[in-house]
This record gives sequence, C-alpha cells and structure tokens, in this order.
Amino acid sequence: MPQVLGGKCCRDIVCEGCYVLLVVDERRRYVLRVRRGAWFGSDRGSIKHDELLGLPYGSWVRLSSGARAAVLQPRLVDFMERGLRRRSQVIYPKDHGMILMLLDVEPGARLLEVGVGSGFTTAVLARAVGPGGRVYSYEIRGDMAEVARSNLEALGLLDRVELKVRDARLGVDERGLDGAVVDMPDPWALLPVLEEALRPGAGAVFFTPAANQAGRLLSALKARGRWVELRMLELLARDYETRGDALRPKTTMIAHTGYLVYARLITE
Amino acid sequence: MPQVLGGKCCRDIVCEGCYVLLVVDERRRYVLRVRRGAWFGSDRGSIKHDELLGLPYGSWVRLSSGARAAVLQPRLVDFMERGLRRRSQVIYPKDHGMILMLLDVEPGARLLEVGVGSGFTTAVLARAVGPGGRVYSYEIRGDMAEVARSNLEALGLLDRVELKVRDARLGVDERGLDGAVVDMPDPWALLPVLEEALRPGAGAVFFTPAANQAGRLLSALKARGRWVELRMLELLARDYETRGDALRPKTTMIAHTGYLVYARLITE
Amino acid sequence: MPQVLGGKCCRDIVCEGCYVLLVVDERRRYVLRVRRGAWFGSDRGSIKHDELLGLPYGSWVRLSSGARAAVLQPRLVDFMERGLRRRSQVIYPKDHGMILMLLDVEPGARLLEVGVGSGFTTAVLARAVGPGGRVYSYEIRGDMAEVARSNLEALGLLDRVELKVRDARLGVDERGLDGAVVDMPDPWALLPVLEEALRPGAGAVFFTPAANQAGRLLSALKARGRWVELRMLELLARDYETRGDALRPKTTMIAHTGYLVYARLITE
Amino acid sequence: MPQVLGGKCCRDIVCEGCYVLLVVDERRRYVLRVRRGAWFGSDRGSIKHDELLGLPYGSWVRLSSGARAAVLQPRLVDFMERGLRRRSQVIYPKDHGMILMLLDVEPGARLLEVGVGSGFTTAVLARAVGPGGRVYSYEIRGDMAEVARSNLEALGLLDRVELKVRDARLGVDERGLDGAVVDMPDPWALLPVLEEALRPGAGAVFFTPAANQAGRLLSALKARGRWVELRMLELLARDYETRGDALRPKTTMIAHTGYLVYARLITE
Repeated sequence: MPQVLGGKCCRDIVCEGCYVLLVVDERRRYVLRVRRGAWFGSDRGSIKHDELLGLPYGSWVRLSSGARAAVLQPRLVDFMERGLRRRSQVIYPKDHGMILMLLDVEPGARLLEVGVGSGFTTAVLARAVGPGGRVYSYEIRGDMAEVARSNLEALGLLDRVELKVRDARLGVDERGLDGAVVDMPDPWALLPVLEEALRPGAGAVFFTPAANQAGRLLSALKARGRWVELRMLELLARDYETRGDALRPKTTMIAHTGYLVYARLITE
Repeated sequence: MPQVLGGKCCRDIVCEGCYVLLVVDERRRYVLRVRRGAWFGSDRGSIKHDELLGLPYGSWVRLSSGARAAVLQPRLVDFMERGLRRRSQVIYPKDHGMILMLLDVEPGARLLEVGVGSGFTTAVLARAVGPGGRVYSYEIRGDMAEVARSNLEALGLLDRVELKVRDARLGVDERGLDGAVVDMPDPWALLPVLEEALRPGAGAVFFTPAANQAGRLLSALKARGRWVELRMLELLARDYETRGDALRPKTTMIAHTGYLVYARLITE
Repeated sequence: MPQVLGGKCCRDIVCEGCYVLLVVDERRRYVLRVRRGAWFGSDRGSIKHDELLGLPYGSWVRLSSGARAAVLQPRLVDFMERGLRRRSQVIYPKDHGMILMLLDVEPGARLLEVGVGSGFTTAVLARAVGPGGRVYSYEIRGDMAEVARSNLEALGLLDRVELKVRDARLGVDERGLDGAVVDMPDPWALLPVLEEALRPGAGAVFFTPAANQAGRLLSALKARGRWVELRMLELLARDYETRGDALRPKTTMIAHTGYLVYARLITE
Repeated sequence: MPQVLGGKCCRDIVCEGCYVLLVVDERRRYVLRVRRGAWFGSDRGSIKHDELLGLPYGSWVRLSSGARAAVLQPRLVDFMERGLRRRSQVIYPKDHGMILMLLDVEPGARLLEVGVGSGFTTAVLARAVGPGGRVYSYEIRGDMAEVARSNLEALGLLDRVELKVRDARLGVDERGLDGAVVDMPDPWALLPVLEEALRPGAGAVFFTPAANQAGRLLSALKARGRWVELRMLELLARDYETRGDALRPKTTMIAHTGYLVYARLITE
C-alpha cells in the first residue's frame, strides 16, 4: 500500500470536510462530504463517516452489510453527475471536452460565459483556466445564479469566477476576452455584444438544443460579416457493457443533448 | 478596429516567427510560420509574409488574386489538422476533450503517457497541465519520438514534457502520477506498470481502435482486481453544413477513430 | 368522407373480429380486436366496441371523455409494438427492413428461419414472401414456438409458415432455399446445415447482439471457405420531435439492438 | 456440388442475357449482362462471357490472371450499387427497407410514388408488391423518367409500374391507394393530392435531405388536420471490418442520406 504519510488533505487523505466518491457497484455511486459523527446509508449498507477519516483515497472500506466500497476523489464529472444541485438542463462532459478543444482554452485564459444554468460549464471552464485565469459568467435568472454559486463554492472554484446576475444582451463589462460559451434561447441576440467583448480572432461556442435554432444562428453569424470558421456539430457518446462474455453497446443512450455551433471573430 | 498597440507577439500581433492560420474559405485553411521575405502561395493567390508582419490577428488580408483571407491565431486543433508532422494514426479532438474530462486534468497535474505517436495527445495534455504541470511520455520507436519532439517544439510545449524513448512495459521512472493516457497495441501488458506509477484513485484512459482489443483490456482490468469504475465508450462527431437554405449533416463522416476505456486504480 | 360501401372487412371497414389501432395521442396507441359487447378503456376515456363496427378505417371516434381517437388498420410494426405477445428480445423494424433488402426477399421466395423467438421476424418474412412463398422456421424451445404460433395466427400469416420445434443444428428438412435468417447464440454451429439447405448463391443474415460474437462468426464464415460477400453492420434509428418551434432528436434512443452479419453461399 | 439440371435461367443457371454479379474481392464487384462472344475485363484479369454460360450461380470461375471470382445472382441492392444508371441522388437500402416496414407494403399493394429519380425506389416497391401489385410513379423530368424506365426494364420490373412524366402537384389519376413515397423538394405542396389519392388510413413516407425542410413538412402535416401518427427519423448504417485480428467499425461512413417523415391519412 502506498505511503501517504503527510499526504495532502482531500487529495491523498480523507479529512474532515473533504468530498468522497463512494463506489459500491456500477450503479451505486455516491458523492458525500465527510463530517465527523455523520452516517452514510444505502440499500447496500451503511458506514460512519469517522471510519473514512484519515483513509488514503483509493482504499476499500466495508459497509455494515459486509459489502465493499471504493473511496475515491470525486472528479468534476462525478460531482456533476452525483454531487451538485441541478436546476436546469445541463451540458454533458462529451460537449464540455469538445468546448475546451474548440476554444483552445489554456491556463490563464479569460473567458466569457452567458447562460450559467447550474454552473457546470462554469466549473469546467474555471478548472481549465487555472488559478491565473478568470471566467466572467452572466446569468439572467437570480435563482439559477444562486444554484451555480453554491455549486462553484462546493467545488472550490468560485474565486476564479465573476458571477453576474444580468442580461448580457444589454452589454458586458469585459473587453479583449479569449473566448465565449453561450447557452441561451436566442444566441443571435448576443452577437453584437460578443463582437465588442472578444479579442480579434477569439472563438465562441454556442450550445443549442434545436436544429432550427442552430440553423438560424448560423444564418445570423453569416449575415453579420464578422465571423469566420463557422462550424456546427454534435457529439454522440456511446457506452459499452459486458454481460458475461458478451461485449456490446448499452441498449439505450442519450441520443441528443445539443448542437455545438462554433465561430471566430474577425475585425471589420 | 481594436487597438493592439503594444499587443503581445503571436497572440495579438503577427511577428517574425509567429504561426498564422490563414483561412481563405472552408477548405482552404493553412498554418504557416511567418518569415520575412518568404511567400505564401495557393491556387487562390499568394501573399508575401512581410505583409502579415505587424498585423493584428483577426484581420483580413488580400491575396494577389484579390481573394480575401482571414489571419488567425492557430488553435491546437488547427495545428493538429494542418500544421504538424503526422507519422501515425492520431487521436482526434473529440477524444482529446473527453480524455481531459475523464482524467479530470487540471493545471499542475503530473501525467503519464505511453505511446506518443506524433505527439498530438502529448500536446493536449501539456497544454492542459500548464507551465506548473508535467507530462512523462514514453515512446518505444525513436523515429516517432523525433516527430513528437519536433511537433512539441513548434508548439512551445516541449519544456513541460519529458520524452523518453523506451519500452514502458519494462517500467517507468515516475511514482504518484495523477493520470495516464495509453495508446499501444497491447495495453493489458502495461497494467502492472500503471499500478506502480499512479497514485491511488488516479485514472487511466486507454485508446484502442478495435472492439475485441477493448474487450480483452476490460477483462484484464477486471482480472487484476485493482481497477474500479470501468467504462468503455466511443464518441461520434457529426458535422453539419448548409447548402443554400438547406441545413443537413455532412454526407460522410469519420465513423470511427477508437474506443476509450477508462478505469481508476485502487489499492490492493 | 370516402365511400366504402362494399369495402373489404378489416381493410376498409371495421367488422367483428377485425384488429384496430386506436390512436389517442403519440403515446396512447392501442391495438385491439373488435368484439361485439366488449369495451375499450384507457385513462383518456372508454368506448364500446360496437361503436367501431361498420366504421371505415381512417375515421375519428369520440371516447367517453370527449377525447378523439383515430381508428386505423394496424400495420405489422404496430402489431409488433402493441398487439403481440413478446417473450424474448426481438429484432426491430429498422433491422427487419434491412434484412429484406440484404436477402433480396421477393414474393414467392422460400426462406429458412432459425431461432424464432416471438415470431416477429417470421411475420415480416411471411408477409414479404406472400401467399405463394414459404417460411420454414425452427425453434428449439417449445414455449417460444407456442408464442410465435399464436402471434402468427393473430396476424393471419400462419398458413405460409412451417413451424418446427427442433434443434436446427442437427439438420433441417429443406433444400434449395432462397435465404436464411439466423438468431441464435452460437450461429457458427449452424453453418454446415446452411451449406446444405441454401441454394448456391443464396444469402444468410445472422442477428447477433454482441460484438465479439459477431467477430467469431465472421472468422468461422471465412474459415469454412464457402461464404463470400461477408458484411457486418449495425443500424441506428434516430427519432426526432418537435417541442413548440424547436425541432430536435429525441433525448434518448435505442442505441443498440444487434449487429447484422451477412454472407452468401458459394459451391465448393 | 448441387444439381441444377433443368435449373431456371438467370436464377439457377447463367444463360444468354442473364445478369451476373462477379465478385473478385471486397472492392472488385461487377454486375454484367452475359452475351455470347463478349469479354469481361478488369485489373485482375479477364474472362470470356462464354465461359459463364451454363454455369450454376454460386460457382467460382478463374480469370485470365488466375484470380478466382464468384458468380452470383445480383440482388436488387447489387444492381443499385453497380449495375444501373444513376442520374440523381438516390435513396439507400437502409432507407428502402424502413420504407417497406413503415408503409406495411405487401404483395398486391397499389402504391404511389412521386419523384422517381433513377427509379431505384420504384424498383424496391415494384418488387415488394409482386406481380399482382402496382406502382404509379410520377416524375416531372422527362430525362429522369427515361433513366428510370431503362433501369426498371433491365430489372424486369417495368410491367408492374406505370411511369408518368407529369407534375403530380397538379393531381394524380389514382384513388384508394395503399401508400405513397414522396421524394421532391417541396413535399408540402403535394399534401392535397395525397389526401385525394390515398385510401383512409394509408401512410406516406417523405424523403427529405434537409432538417429544416423536414421541419417545414411536419408543420404542414399538422396544419392540415388530416394526418396522424407523425414521425421523423433517420437511419445510420455503420459497417464493420476486420483487419487481421482486429474487429472495428470502418473509418468513414455515409453519415447522412436523408430524413424519413411518416404520416397516415385520416378522413376529415
């Protein structure tokens, strides 16, 4: 077993207040925050949080039933699936990963986000820009912004984000930004704002669930004459499973989350 | 037009030695390195590099034919598509993005890569871990490693990468790593090495083109009893196009690059 | 309203004993057999069967709640979805259609089927070969064969089918057949039998849920030296929906039913 | 070797004027009409047609190079891929099969087709309705109708088809038809005609390459109040290949042919 003496809290060793991903089996996966005196319970048995304290991550524990559970660091995708408040349709990891690639996000970048929802995309961007970067996030609905704020706080990412409850279509405060992610019903209405806020050559990704909405956006981008490298795509993620000896795709899948429309800003 | 006085070379302004993505139309996209006195030529006209020097990125230029071209900062995905040497089958951006999400890569991370190929994945990882992170990359073929080295140098990412021409199945030097990306024909042969090199709870992504190869790997992962959260998936990227008024998926697509197999390491 | 005086029972006019597809809305679709004195009931209201008698197909009726329902001839796909007994995993219409195309099925053909299950595929084949054709169907399980028999009887297709409760791997009675559909766990074990039963040049389609099973079958087909035109494919059916103005793929879909393996028999 | 004494010309034995599918390898597949005295030639060798005469289908022959070729009955899908004149974008077998299932086509049916193109869909329908059925096919362009006519003649299916060079939007001659397949740029313009020509309860399938065109059609179908069971779908066919031991999807695929929109006619 690896030495973790002096290991880092919440990274190597489970300490008070750390998050843990507890995996009993493929469907029984739980994100919990460790609190002295608290209990975790499931249909497969329970365990007192105290038994997790001081454990190295990557260990096995026994639940009351005798069932074994793995103690893991929750990834951002685990938080999004199991550990965060969700108040809106969300963007999925397959799309998040592609957004990072399309926008060429790197540590230190300054990004705009319009339409924050539950803050999942905000978290992905905030993590990728690192402590030296910054995400400026506009959300028109106060209740959604509150959900996002509490999620970002849980993830320890709030200090890289400026969350503003405001209608971005009326303008944003920033200039010279390195990229933008837009998730709103009428993205075409944001184009003049983006043209002011982004630095020349920067890209924007628009997430749109409907095909005709994406088509309308493409037309609007073309009509403005300021956008190049237009692209519209969708990603399908197909999971496989093994049943006994048989290897096969899972029977059902998420067949659609949304289309990604990409474009880069050019000077007039 | 935005002010770029005092702008940063290769980011805001085109300087000697900077890379430029020159976009004439959807299919005429070129990555070039700007050299005083050199000429760019295409079937749509030519331009002397000198005319690009000092230009803000995001500008239009005129080729000799009168055709307009956009001058853009090449993204990593543009480099991979147009500007780098390619000596092997490569992993695509859709998969790169998902790898970042699956492995929870963040600035500062220390990652293992086995099977470097042309170095595209190395570049994606090196960019994501930032200047404070590190990628340890093992490649068994010296000629491939040279291609990768020259590509990483062109991208300015070589200083974050330790490139070793060695058979990783015989062992790697690092310990306590935060994640691994493996692209080799017999990934099952690497599991004992990964179990020593990764920190407990860290994840590995295996890229495998064949379904039966992925199935064999899943079996091997199960048999070792040290891996949890097993997942096998593939991503399909579908591009759309507009022809006149019509919005439709492109007629052909890359239907398969490879499967991603994911697992997390647990202590014994 | 069209004249259906003298219309054909169960085709133009609803008569005693006819089947009806009653459509209230997209999710409330029912296949029922009309019996004088019986009642149809649903959460959207009820109707006495007698009110359907004598109606032309393609009419509207009112349920007790005032809700409107369309009275339609059930298609074979409606029967399969709503009106038949189902005792096994079934092949879907997308695959059925492709099987007809791959095997070049036409009226008058004589076909072999091995692995009958609930008889859905039998029905598709029996319908396509018409009254002058014949389907020889082997099923190893007596209980399944009974389900299939009752389904084929309900569809009026039993007279074109010879249903045999027998292990086809031990041999079949027919020779010179025009094609075969095979749905069994070990299709490679049937190849010698197929080589005797099919006429030279005839094709076989094998339905196999698992990728590695399909791979093993392909190897077996190659090894025997009697099969050409090998092909393995899968079909994905993606449904769309409109929500208000928005047109988009449905969120979830059947992502996998099975692979189709095709081959044609050649003389030695 | 099977006995084919007295076998049927063009079905069991190759006779003068029969079509043959000659398969050298996966990519070298040829449909030819056998003519005494003629030669077949390819980069893999040649053969005099006379050597094919009298051969049972399903045999091997040797080309001049020594390479072996399989002599097969061409299926309809082989004709469409290799043996017919093609003057337009065509519908693919995956869609043809689904159309047969959606429309519940059976021997004896009377069908309408609008937009004949090269006649491939006509052939599929004509084959499925059998000698006792009938396909009424309207094509606005005389040159296309000629291509279709010559293709149907080659297939021996012309006697089941009434091919009319006329704008179907102005009305069709038939009434009480069992189904319709429509492939034209403005399918919404045909709805009043379909409402007269189809029998109540009959279905129509519309083939439309563009998403926004399909969306407009769905709106038109809803607006007319005469159509139920609306459905829009697309089929993706994914082919696999084996390379050595590796089983994997082919790298590229036809990602889009068109959307299928389905609806059934109801009386007013």
